[in-house]
Amino acid sequence: MSSLIHPSALVSPLAELGNNVSIGPFTVVHPGTRIGSGSRIDGHCELGYPTPLADGLPLIIGSGAVIRSHSIFYQGSTFGDGLVTGHHVTVREKTVAGPGFQIGTFGDIQGHCEIGAYVKTQSSVTIGQKSRIGHFVWLFPGVLLTNDPNPPSNDLQGVTLEDYVVVAVKSTLLPGVRIGRHSFVTAHALVAQDMPADSLVSGTPAKRLCKASDMRLKGDLRVRAYPWNKRFVRGYPDHVVEQWANGIEPFALAEDPSDDAPTAKLPPAPGR
Amino acid sequence: MSSLIHPSALVSPLAELGNNVSIGPFTVVHPGTRIGSGSRIDGHCELGYPTPLADGLPLIIGSGAVIRSHSIFYQGSTFGDGLVTGHHVTVREKTVAGPGFQIGTFGDIQGHCEIGAYVKTQSSVTIGQKSRIGHFVWLFPGVLLTNDPNPPSNDLQGVTLEDYVVVAVKSTLLPGVRIGRHSFVTAHALVAQDMPADSLVSGTPAKRLCKASDMRLKGDLRVRAYPWNKRFVRGYPDHVVEQWANGIEPFALAEDPSDDAPTAKLPPAPGR
Amino acid sequence: MSSLIHPSALVSPLAELGNNVSIGPFTVVHPGTRIGSGSRIDGHCELGYPTPLADGLPLIIGSGAVIRSHSIFYQGSTFGDGLVTGHHVTVREKTVAGPGFQIGTFGDIQGHCEIGAYVKTQSSVTIGQKSRIGHFVWLFPGVLLTNDPNPPSNDLQGVTLEDYVVVAVKSTLLPGVRIGRHSFVTAHALVAQDMPADSLVSGTPAKRLCKASDMRLKGDLRVRAYPWNKRFVRGYPDHVVEQWANGIEPFALAEDPSDDAPTAKLPPAPGR
Repeated sequence: MSSLIHPSALVSPLAELGNNVSIGPFTVVHPGTRIGSGSRIDGHCELGYPTPLADGLPLIIGSGAVIRSHSIFYQGSTFGDGLVTGHHVTVREKTVAGPGFQIGTFGDIQGHCEIGAYVKTQSSVTIGQKSRIGHFVWLFPGVLLTNDPNPPSNDLQGVTLEDYVVVAVKSTLLPGVRIGRHSFVTAHALVAQDMPADSLVSGTPAKRLCKASDMRLKGDLRVRAYPWNKRFVRGYPDHVVEQWANGIEPFALAEDPSDDAPTAKLPPAPGR
Repeated sequence: MSSLIHPSALVSPLAELGNNVSIGPFTVVHPGTRIGSGSRIDGHCELGYPTPLADGLPLIIGSGAVIRSHSIFYQGSTFGDGLVTGHHVTVREKTVAGPGFQIGTFGDIQGHCEIGAYVKTQSSVTIGQKSRIGHFVWLFPGVLLTNDPNPPSNDLQGVTLEDYVVVAVKSTLLPGVRIGRHSFVTAHALVAQDMPADSLVSGTPAKRLCKASDMRLKGDLRVRAYPWNKRFVRGYPDHVVEQWANGIEPFALAEDPSDDAPTAKLPPAPGR
Repeated sequence: MSSLIHPSALVSPLAELGNNVSIGPFTVVHPGTRIGSGSRIDGHCELGYPTPLADGLPLIIGSGAVIRSHSIFYQGSTFGDGLVTGHHVTVREKTVAGPGFQIGTFGDIQGHCEIGAYVKTQSSVTIGQKSRIGHFVWLFPGVLLTNDPNPPSNDLQGVTLEDYVVVAVKSTLLPGVRIGRHSFVTAHALVAQDMPADSLVSGTPAKRLCKASDMRLKGDLRVRAYPWNKRFVRGYPDHVVEQWANGIEPFALAEDPSDDAPTAKLPPAPGR
């Protein structure tokens, strides 16, 4: 479908493009890159950026992606269907993400990460190397997942966020921390220790204040704020919303991996 | 004035450019975009980025703009004369800003905002949807205006900053907060509640410490630091500086909107 | 060596390129720019960005540089050999940096800075004007060096970081602060006062907790964490590692400048 490739774009003949893939002006697509059908790549992007750290693995982007302008994806990462990005995004090598991954403007994913299904990050989120993120996780603007317990060192210990975790604006998770599923981390927190499931986490250093499921909606105290997926379903596919309504987990959970789970089966946290 | 358009730029014949508009290399200007006379658009930019969320409204940029490289402006926003940006800026749809708006490098204006006259933001400032910003406001590096009281939700409540407010580095304003005119928010604050005019606001969570007008200049205790426009006028037009010297407000204030005020007449804050 | 210049790049005939310099697609190199031999400039960059604030000085980049895509360097700054950047970097005029300078993705160096040898910054680091940074300094993601004690004002007082200082994620240094050599600033700190050499600095506002050299490695309490160069040498040149092993300072220290020191001899901090 070369008619969808802008004449100023530089698309390698060794890239593999599905049907109806569009490529914007001044975008560079390197050899080996595979882009699924129906994807839209804006202008001024660079896909399949070469690096020896990718060990020769290609960049693989699923179908129906929208990659907005001025974004850079390295070789050696794989994304499920329905990837959506903002502008000025950078994603390095050897990250594997499930379907429906959204990366906000100025997102910085530093590679070697495992990311589940329908993870959504807003603007200026930095995800350090070796992070492991479950399904349906939300990261709000300015969130930072770190990985070096003794900066500078060679000992990278990624953060683990279990399914449905929400981290509010500008919070920082220190190296190796694991946050249990359905937890909520408030704005501006600095989290230095593991938190069990269903935790409301707040402060610097952050503490567990109570159950996240004890929180009520600001503006309507009759409604529990968390788990959020009991009150907020915009943007999720029908089959997921239906499963939620019927109390079924759409994907195998982190602690209960099974064969039909998508990419992100979280292994146990590394010993720390 | 096609001689000012770099031959590698892609400028739609359906864009409307004033006299002496220059367009840098590899920049894309979409149909319907209007750029005022004497404006300079650097290279690697994209202006009038299409989105259905703009409801068909064009991007309108006043005269004398300087848009630095790698910046992106969506359809459906309108800027007064004298817009200046840094690099790598992103501005989404349906924002209306008065004259003299300055956006620092890595600025992220997420759309649907009302912004007054001579608002200046430094680098890495994020302005969430539905923010309302008065005249002569300063936002220093890393400031974040949020909008979602129950993340994630559909209930966006923007922040309101009245005229002459200054927010120092890396402070965060939580959803729906209103800060009174001439207030000063110190560095690294997390502001969760409304503040009256002339407040010195500090801490996490932030409290009102005293009147902003009680603060003295670091380095010269004889001089009051705020209101800042009694001691700092660099970069403002002569007519504004003259009015300040004579104790006249250059524009109608937020609480006293009149017919000759420019774009940003702040309506009352939403009930919270 | 024009064969290494991509045909879509716009390289001024008045730029001076050493041997084996490669220039990527859609990159702009302005007149007067000098790039040392063996350097690799990615696509979508702009080098030698013109500004009257550079007083006509050129951009000078040493040999062996790697400048990644979508980066912008202004006229009037000078970099030693071995400069390495991430993507989307912005560096303004009149900064002088020694050899081995690394700038992470989304780095923002606002100009008029003095930077020593082998300084390494990770992503989203903002270095305000008039900052002075010694040798072997590390700045982790989201660190901000400020400069305006009375925002907004004309009185810029840069931060001074002495040799071997490490600043962890998202910490902010307030205007004019000086941090003594071998100090460690923990994550999320707000540093408002000078700190002597070998300080462990933490909190908001930050205090000196103890000697940095009293800290042990997380994960191995037998090993002192700082000075870090006694346990971590990856990425430094052999001659530096050898000198460290023999207890020799590779460059004259900030407090002991000599003729054979590279660019950054730190003058005394400005009176405050």
